[in-house]
Amino acid sequence: MDAGHKFQVRKLEILDKSKGFIELLQQLTICDSVSDKEFEERFQEINSFGDDHLICVIEDDHSGKIIATGSVFIEKKFLRNCGKVGHIEDVVVDSAARGMQLGKKIIEFLTDHAHSMGCYKVILDCSLENKAFYEKCGYSQKEVQMVKYFV
Amino acid sequence: MDAGHKFQVRKLEILDKSKGFIELLQQLTICDSVSDKEFEERFQEINSFGDDHLICVIEDDHSGKIIATGSVFIEKKFLRNCGKVGHIEDVVVDSAARGMQLGKKIIEFLTDHAHSMGCYKVILDCSLENKAFYEKCGYSQKEVQMVKYFV
Repeated sequence: MDAGHKFQVRKLEILDKSKGFIELLQQLTICDSVSDKEFEERFQEINSFGDDHLICVIEDDHSGKIIATGSVFIEKKFLRNCGKVGHIEDVVVDSAARGMQLGKKIIEFLTDHAHSMGCYKVILDCSLENKAFYEKCGYSQKEVQMVKYFV
Repeated sequence: MDAGHKFQVRKLEILDKSKGFIELLQQLTICDSVSDKEFEERFQEINSFGDDHLICVIEDDHSGKIIATGSVFIEKKFLRNCGKVGHIEDVVVDSAARGMQLGKKIIEFLTDHAHSMGCYKVILDCSLENKAFYEKCGYSQKEVQMVKYFV
């Protein structure tokens, strides 16, 4: 890809399913094909949270494909004087579009959103190999992530 | 405390503010006093998410004090075939009530809730020193937690 691309970050739109959004998620983890109906239902469900759950994307304006995405949702707490925390999830950049700082743009967009929503912090979980990338984005390691799978 | 206590886990109620709920959170992290109005507003905000954001507590039926709490919220995703993930947060047991498996009861309650909501996994972040406790609850270490503070 050449340097003429703009690579603007914007909110996920319902038409992005036809632009390779699900295929992009498949580069991150298990994600079988999702029907249009399933996609629309989940889209509306997430949309109903308004600014409390934001999914952003970068569309390649040449190919019309979604080449990067990430999400953040705002958790409301009692502690920290009824504080809020941003949780960043599902960050992925198309393997053919690496090295163009798209991941950094996604993280900055999601971090700025959490800040503007009044969060006192933003957290995310990543593999050890991705730790250096997040440190470049201003994040520091804190705790360890524990998981329990049901399936 | 003697062994005659029942220690049932139940959902947070609005009256729990007067039973030491905020003071309990203060054992976990920074939490200045919260006014009744702030508490009620945040309670209703969280309540409006229904089963998607559950805060549970254990009340000592002798003292009438809240001695353990934890929360879980359900994140809706597109990946994993429009899957859901439970996020456990803000688990704390009163320092005077340790060693009675109350933390385990809280984690089991929150984990069961996420399972019943159809989540494919539950995640949480903890310090290295608490890792063994969560392993006893059936959790395994996976990734590392990164954080960025705004304040």
